[in-house]
Amino acid sequence: MQLPLDAELNAIFDEVAGMDAGKVADYIPALREANPDWFGVSLVTVDSHRYDVGDSEQSFTIQSVSKPFAYAMALEKHGIDAVLQRVGVEPSGDPFNSIEFDMTTRRPYNPMVNAGAIMTSSLLDGAAAVDAGFARFAGRALKLDEEVFQSESDSGDRNRAIAYLMRNFGMLEAEVETTLQAYFRQCALLVDARDLATMGATLANRGVNPMTGERAVSGVNVVRVLSAMSTCGMYDYAGEWLYNVGLPAKSGVSGAVLAVMPGQFGLAIFSPRLDSHGNSVRGIGFCKAVSERFSLHLFSPAAVDHSVVRRAYGGDIVRSNRHRLAFQDSALKRLGSTTRVLELQGQLRFGSCEVLSRAIAAELDDAEVMILDFRRVSAVGRSASKLLRAIGEMFEKSPSQVVVAAAPREVAESLGALSFDALADALEWREDQLLERADLEPGPARIPLADVEVLHGVDADLLPMIEAAGTYRRYQDGEMIFNAGDRADRIYFLVEGRVDVVLVMGETFARATTLGPGATFGEMAALYGGARSAGVRAAMPSVCFELEVAELDRLSRDRPGISLQLHTNIGRALANRVGQLSDEVAALRQ
Amino acid sequence: MQLPLDAELNAIFDEVAGMDAGKVADYIPALREANPDWFGVSLVTVDSHRYDVGDSEQSFTIQSVSKPFAYAMALEKHGIDAVLQRVGVEPSGDPFNSIEFDMTTRRPYNPMVNAGAIMTSSLLDGAAAVDAGFARFAGRALKLDEEVFQSESDSGDRNRAIAYLMRNFGMLEAEVETTLQAYFRQCALLVDARDLATMGATLANRGVNPMTGERAVSGVNVVRVLSAMSTCGMYDYAGEWLYNVGLPAKSGVSGAVLAVMPGQFGLAIFSPRLDSHGNSVRGIGFCKAVSERFSLHLFSPAAVDHSVVRRAYGGDIVRSNRHRLAFQDSALKRLGSTTRVLELQGQLRFGSCEVLSRAIAAELDDAEVMILDFRRVSAVGRSASKLLRAIGEMFEKSPSQVVVAAAPREVAESLGALSFDALADALEWREDQLLERADLEPGPARIPLADVEVLHGVDADLLPMIEAAGTYRRYQDGEMIFNAGDRADRIYFLVEGRVDVVLVMGETFARATTLGPGATFGEMAALYGGARSAGVRAAMPSVCFELEVAELDRLSRDRPGISLQLHTNIGRALANRVGQLSDEVAALRQ
Repeated sequence: MQLPLDAELNAIFDEVAGMDAGKVADYIPALREANPDWFGVSLVTVDSHRYDVGDSEQSFTIQSVSKPFAYAMALEKHGIDAVLQRVGVEPSGDPFNSIEFDMTTRRPYNPMVNAGAIMTSSLLDGAAAVDAGFARFAGRALKLDEEVFQSESDSGDRNRAIAYLMRNFGMLEAEVETTLQAYFRQCALLVDARDLATMGATLANRGVNPMTGERAVSGVNVVRVLSAMSTCGMYDYAGEWLYNVGLPAKSGVSGAVLAVMPGQFGLAIFSPRLDSHGNSVRGIGFCKAVSERFSLHLFSPAAVDHSVVRRAYGGDIVRSNRHRLAFQDSALKRLGSTTRVLELQGQLRFGSCEVLSRAIAAELDDAEVMILDFRRVSAVGRSASKLLRAIGEMFEKSPSQVVVAAAPREVAESLGALSFDALADALEWREDQLLERADLEPGPARIPLADVEVLHGVDADLLPMIEAAGTYRRYQDGEMIFNAGDRADRIYFLVEGRVDVVLVMGETFARATTLGPGATFGEMAALYGGARSAGVRAAMPSVCFELEVAELDRLSRDRPGISLQLHTNIGRALANRVGQLSDEVAALRQ
Repeated sequence: MQLPLDAELNAIFDEVAGMDAGKVADYIPALREANPDWFGVSLVTVDSHRYDVGDSEQSFTIQSVSKPFAYAMALEKHGIDAVLQRVGVEPSGDPFNSIEFDMTTRRPYNPMVNAGAIMTSSLLDGAAAVDAGFARFAGRALKLDEEVFQSESDSGDRNRAIAYLMRNFGMLEAEVETTLQAYFRQCALLVDARDLATMGATLANRGVNPMTGERAVSGVNVVRVLSAMSTCGMYDYAGEWLYNVGLPAKSGVSGAVLAVMPGQFGLAIFSPRLDSHGNSVRGIGFCKAVSERFSLHLFSPAAVDHSVVRRAYGGDIVRSNRHRLAFQDSALKRLGSTTRVLELQGQLRFGSCEVLSRAIAAELDDAEVMILDFRRVSAVGRSASKLLRAIGEMFEKSPSQVVVAAAPREVAESLGALSFDALADALEWREDQLLERADLEPGPARIPLADVEVLHGVDADLLPMIEAAGTYRRYQDGEMIFNAGDRADRIYFLVEGRVDVVLVMGETFARATTLGPGATFGEMAALYGGARSAGVRAAMPSVCFELEVAELDRLSRDRPGISLQLHTNIGRALANRVGQLSDEVAALRQ
């Protein structure tokens, strides 16, 4: 299937293909032989989807597009301070082959002009290390174009002059010719648009190659490389480029332009016709069109997402999966509003975290316990960590306790929060706390049959008849009482222990509900027909009173009141459940 | 309450307050008198929350921080082409008062050095227009410091030289002295940190002042202003600034630094001690600390939010609010999976829209109708519009129909989608379509009482007894059948028309469910006690058969079977509803 972005990129491609101004680089024969009509585009997203248009498999030498990657390797190897001593980061407004240096520091202005790139090459560890570095960015080993390497070396006298001058200043410590060979070799590595887009996507992806999952450079150095590309990547066209296109980019004399949308994608264009600045005419045209069409300029950002709080509700409305008896239910409906749940979503970063901090502050006075559900938080950025810690301090100073569900460990620690795997567990803990405090937690002992909820109010003389018609049965911890799909021939009244209603999900069980003494289960399928829709398993040694439907029918023939009372009570329980579930659906739909 | 970010900003403030290097500007007496210890900070978010620390109310002259705003006004007035003819956008690497010009075009390099700013001032329309422009950015009228204005004018000979040189080149068309007066006056406007932060937040907010809601500059010109600030805003320190701090910024000689985090906030620092570049020492220190502490560097972006699809489910699981009869329910359970619902969330921009396009493509073959629910989409950026159109084209080429709920009109148009106000409405339309196609829609005529669902299977001889015990009643369109809170004394069987179950939300009604012929309502409160939990209103002329509970009890004494059969059927209906609601809760909790 042609995806929408395929269609868009093809449309831009057709538009830009009409631009046939510019001249193929001709300072060495190997470049002069390039077909001026070659035109290939690749875009690789940070989640490793690749879009290709045209001659995206045509290979060419990487030339100056190698500079940001070599700079990344130098930063990784020596650290920022050592590298900054050798190469600056100020844009100079000069052409790529300028022989100008910062007057006070004698450094090349920046790593994207030839002088700075030669200095950068001198800081690397020879061909094998350079090849390994590029392979991490591209996701494959790059071959060398020997012919181009040789010609560059033969015709590289201006670069020789630059290198000797730097050595004269005492800035270049390595051998001039060794350094130049390393530099020429790095420029003569063969790539295609797909490779460059992958290399760019690795920068967009904070240094991790999205295709291989391998880290090529640390996130903090990616930021530095992209900064240098932004101010100096397009030579003396850099200011206008940032102004018009607004993406960090690097061009090369073979006709490549690589643009990076941080956090989103790398985009590579290959088309050998160059303008007077030495930049690919179609490469610039394509990037401008993409930037305009999709409003992708760096300074045209997504606003802070104020929907970080997906929904908020009280513990009186949304409940844990733990089944409660009617008197507990009504207590939780009364007391539960002292629990506030904030379900969070999206990415937690500085802006969204600042919005969150205000949402929490606004609810803090009403919440004895505030549960923050992180299940739908897709990422917690480093930019959020300081504010999370400060939010934790705000909780400490308040009477409110913070609890997190499904949160990364560091987040729970920053907040100083009690942490649960899932929201349902956090809610159950809090409900137990509320019930215990109100002295409403039934003890572990066996209850009499009359205390089973759906038997409340049943005429006193009928109870012994019901008890005589059924049997008590004990289950071991973990024993299945029945399975989903079983024929339903009886109703279960739980008088001791605890059972889980479980759903089979593939090969594992998911706990849907937990029932305690006084609960009835299996009544729906038994009374209203159909097989068991879920399984029930003893969660500890438990005792059920089991009444077969056939026995109930036999009893009802003698005393019709029995069935009616039971049906009325079960109907009432179901009606309550419908009411509670409807409230829950309404809250969840918000 | 002290918000978490208050605490963080105070901590940074205390840290940076220790930096006492640097010298107060002394080229005019008025600046020389500044207290070197003044230190004020304000941060204004794009949703208009302001954080203040220290001397944020201390006023000072705006000086060079006026330049980006004057540039914005010039772009608004003349358009980009005319302005670019007069002032470039290339960083020059030169100090602020440099007398250098682009050799080929004779333009000042950029609008952030004095030469470019004087040129910019010459393009504006006099004091009143300039004051009005600044007032839109600051949200209040700014006063002039007459004394500073006069001193600047008296001591501004270098700027005079620059202006005359530009006039000599034929670049400056206005009168030199008029232009200079306008420039000096603009620099002598009085602001405090709160004003500057608001002005920055206006840029962060795409040109709309978050405090007043007034637009100060178009979004497209904001992008240009921020680009120029990024490459040229900190004079010859701009490259290193972008490298280390990574926020567009502008400094001024009175000791102000304004930094902008696009989409998030404006941050202003005022502290008069300057370093050798003319930038506030504490201003730079504070920005560096904020950038580091919160990882706010421009090139350290939020990754694309891949959680754009909040959840996806079939029309067999989640249903409209329309109550269906059992045979329709089972048909919808069978046919409903040909409807796919994708609930979207967050911001729809280029990256998230590209992810969405792939999610849609993956489901396209399984969905006859795909409903995209936009209710939780907080913004649809311009960067998404082209891709939305392309997604519409993908649907056109597929056998799948696209339907949107709660989407902005432009989005529905881009997609070529059928559009509904709410997801429930879209689902209802689709369910009706499926039922109609399967010939399962009951006609508008009255149905016999025996066809009421909960009376199915009731012994034939009992029905006439039930019918004799109750009454038929007709309701007008819009008539309330009962209200929430009413005493519940009867059960309603709908035999003609349509009724809405409505919840009172403040002063308006919200439709919870719609019922059609064959439905029973009011049975839960009537049979199991309690008042009406919701109101019911006729949605068209309708007829109910109404059975009082007292009559039912009387009947049951004669023929106990009646009550039991009714309770069993109602219990079965409730059990089905519990099952469906549980599935729905499980799907919504995903």
